[in-house]
Amino acid sequence: MTDAMTNTDPKAYRRLTTRFARIATVEEATAMLGWDEAAVMPDNGAAARADQLAILSGIAHGMLTEPVVADDLDAAEAAPPPGEAERRNLNLMRRAHAQATALPGDLVEALTRQASACEKIWRAARRSSDFSMAAKPLAALLALTREKAAALSAVSGLAPYDALIDTYQPGITAAEIAPVFAGYETFLKHALPRAEALQAQREYKLPGTAPFAEAAQEALCRKLAAGVGLDFAGARLDRSTHPFCGGTPTDIRITTRYDEADFAAAVMGVLHETGHALYEAGLPHAHARQPVGFAAGMAAHESQSLIIEMQAARSDAFLTFLGPVLAETFGQTSADFALPRLVARLRHVERSFIRVEADEMTYPAHVILRFRLEAAMVAGDLAVADLPDAWNEGLHDLLNITPPDDARGCLQDIHWYCGLFGYFPSYTLGAMAAAQLMATARRTVLEMDDALSRGDFAPLLAWLRANVHRHGAQFGFNDLLRHATGKPLDPTDFEAHLTARYLTA
Amino acid sequence: MTDAMTNTDPKAYRRLTTRFARIATVEEATAMLGWDEAAVMPDNGAAARADQLAILSGIAHGMLTEPVVADDLDAAEAAPPPGEAERRNLNLMRRAHAQATALPGDLVEALTRQASACEKIWRAARRSSDFSMAAKPLAALLALTREKAAALSAVSGLAPYDALIDTYQPGITAAEIAPVFAGYETFLKHALPRAEALQAQREYKLPGTAPFAEAAQEALCRKLAAGVGLDFAGARLDRSTHPFCGGTPTDIRITTRYDEADFAAAVMGVLHETGHALYEAGLPHAHARQPVGFAAGMAAHESQSLIIEMQAARSDAFLTFLGPVLAETFGQTSADFALPRLVARLRHVERSFIRVEADEMTYPAHVILRFRLEAAMVAGDLAVADLPDAWNEGLHDLLNITPPDDARGCLQDIHWYCGLFGYFPSYTLGAMAAAQLMATARRTVLEMDDALSRGDFAPLLAWLRANVHRHGAQFGFNDLLRHATGKPLDPTDFEAHLTARYLTA
Repeated sequence: MTDAMTNTDPKAYRRLTTRFARIATVEEATAMLGWDEAAVMPDNGAAARADQLAILSGIAHGMLTEPVVADDLDAAEAAPPPGEAERRNLNLMRRAHAQATALPGDLVEALTRQASACEKIWRAARRSSDFSMAAKPLAALLALTREKAAALSAVSGLAPYDALIDTYQPGITAAEIAPVFAGYETFLKHALPRAEALQAQREYKLPGTAPFAEAAQEALCRKLAAGVGLDFAGARLDRSTHPFCGGTPTDIRITTRYDEADFAAAVMGVLHETGHALYEAGLPHAHARQPVGFAAGMAAHESQSLIIEMQAARSDAFLTFLGPVLAETFGQTSADFALPRLVARLRHVERSFIRVEADEMTYPAHVILRFRLEAAMVAGDLAVADLPDAWNEGLHDLLNITPPDDARGCLQDIHWYCGLFGYFPSYTLGAMAAAQLMATARRTVLEMDDALSRGDFAPLLAWLRANVHRHGAQFGFNDLLRHATGKPLDPTDFEAHLTARYLTA
Repeated sequence: MTDAMTNTDPKAYRRLTTRFARIATVEEATAMLGWDEAAVMPDNGAAARADQLAILSGIAHGMLTEPVVADDLDAAEAAPPPGEAERRNLNLMRRAHAQATALPGDLVEALTRQASACEKIWRAARRSSDFSMAAKPLAALLALTREKAAALSAVSGLAPYDALIDTYQPGITAAEIAPVFAGYETFLKHALPRAEALQAQREYKLPGTAPFAEAAQEALCRKLAAGVGLDFAGARLDRSTHPFCGGTPTDIRITTRYDEADFAAAVMGVLHETGHALYEAGLPHAHARQPVGFAAGMAAHESQSLIIEMQAARSDAFLTFLGPVLAETFGQTSADFALPRLVARLRHVERSFIRVEADEMTYPAHVILRFRLEAAMVAGDLAVADLPDAWNEGLHDLLNITPPDDARGCLQDIHWYCGLFGYFPSYTLGAMAAAQLMATARRTVLEMDDALSRGDFAPLLAWLRANVHRHGAQFGFNDLLRHATGKPLDPTDFEAHLTARYLTA
């Protein structure tokens, strides 16, 4: 006790919060420059922007790894702050510091360099649909990633692949994910053929008639995002090739792209990004720029975009409201956007090769495939050279289809080729969590569907703010669900959702 | 000699260039965030943005003032690098370091705080046209500025006010400026009444008929900027309340605002900012991110915007080309934009109260007034309480008009109220330098006016690149002019320009 006491310093925790706020502020600058790069930067700015981002990232890393931080963490832990949020904050500071210091500087540098080189080659390989071009750089990147996983594992006590997952979504492990995904595979084997059969019995007539003018789409997207609850006094909607939600909680930047042949991608895309944006806007102000004040992880984030897009916006209730709005927007009749036609476009199930184009029922199959393959690669059980075959066999097992080429197979996603291993599970964990949260919200907030049928998201948003957003990163993934729904991740809500939506005639 | 030798370190200069490149890269991030704030940021982002900018500024300052920098400067100076540009670069590093370390941390902090407070009160005072509201905070800011001037003076050996001027434009002093400005005052006393008399004899008929559609103005501005030589692969044109040129040499951001009642402000404004942009784009790539690779100062920068806007774009030659372009842009006749009508709008001389709205002949009077007043304030010869009377008397002496209120008098400009003392002379030094450069360019490049009459800026731009842009900050203000024109600042070229343009019937 005396030893611990001599080490305490009541000001240590305060110093840490100041430091972490400064780090977060530098990262806000990075986020803004990232938005700028994707949304508005002219081409010739690319080289200078890469330098700016690298230097800011190095500065933030340096602020996190200065020797005094370890001393302050020790001192603060010896005399922890009184509040629960503050203690969680301190834990998260320790975690961030441990992750940042776990990796030797030359490994970080080698990873950055190899990721950049590999991503570049991947772009060419995907264009040529030739995996062999990317195999060697990917193998090198995987080797470095395995070193990183081992180093993170050593400080966290997590298994190597879990340590990677943990950098994107704390509070869940591969051992917890695997049975959930296996269960879904079984569900899908029965559900998909039945959904296809039911779908085949219905008329497939798309809503409206193209072209859908870009300006009208944009005005509609803005109106819908505001209607869901996004305050444009603290947000922007712009265009980018790959839609995303960036910026900071008081200055959120969402992007989309418009296709005059199809309004649905932009409309649903913006509703998706609005879900992310509302999570950011709803994070606890009292803990702004502190680790506990950020989102609970990438799966948690995805749950918030998907609960808006998939659970709420593609529901019968909301589509009934949306039809006439679309008709007015594009100067067509309400009959052109009647529910069956919207369903034909927005709730169409189809086995396909490309993850980002997949419907909500088959999407998890794409994620399950990647989860198993990356777990095997990180474990050293799958060599990069064997990836194309493993991919094609895996997809065949899950969806009974085989990619015609690598571009539509193991070359389709950027993730591994830029060093993101452990990220993929977040997509489906988010989808499952969204269903679980929606099931609880629907039981608790009885007027929810009535409100959605009037285009009113307020009851849902209020529930999400109270049960998810305001907690920030207080809880890991399973604990967040436990607090909001009374149980950890439970895929039966997602299966029940799909059953109700796709398996009832 | 032995002492000096023991202190040498051939790697010191290399370390300094690496450090200054990193500092410049952080400042690029700051520049981009500044553009974002002015051009696209939603209102609610303001507080977070202020934090981001403050922290990045603190980081850059910290990188410049780390103790090792002084050691490296000493070592590099003991064994200076071989090239002329490198030696100038080292001098500019020393200067930047001396300026940054001259000011005690608490003075910098007090200045930042007081400037922010004073600027806020100034906005309210200007709205109410009540100088008394702002007098006390301005006096406090002036007191801190005098401390700053004294501290900078102590390290540079310059007089206090010169030390302030030097932070914006190195290479010229108040003692050199004063007789130039006094000479202009004498010129103006004779020239202005004569210009007014000649103008009164001409018909005053404005070009075209409003409204001038915003979209058409914007398309035209883009076309003109590109025509002058701006490459939009490395630049953007956006909107902001106060037009400016920001960004970085490979990613230049210019802004303007549009008024459908008057096309001239946007068109001439964009040509002005394009002049700034071309200077940035033409800086020496080999010294990118080094002190010697930046622009030579604010007066030099202003000379480049004004040579494009005032010297070239408002010339008979270019206006002859511009008329039909305007007619086509706005779907009106060429006669609507005949030269006399363009001259009536774009070369109208008028005694007025507001600097930013002044024509090129009376503009220097506004600057001369501010130069004299701020020199007296910094010297302690003019108390802030006496500023309104001194202002009104000064303007009366120069232009024979008296502001009806402080909003149109000493409250009109933000500069002093946010701590900018020593900046004002740059505007008129730039205008004079533009005339001097143009006179030389016109003598050297005989086809220049022919080219301008075809809308072709290439000969002028080539001359500016060779004689101004590529030198970066190799020379101070007078030396830059000496290299480009064979003499230091000589206001007779500006007077000759005004005489030719305004005093010939």
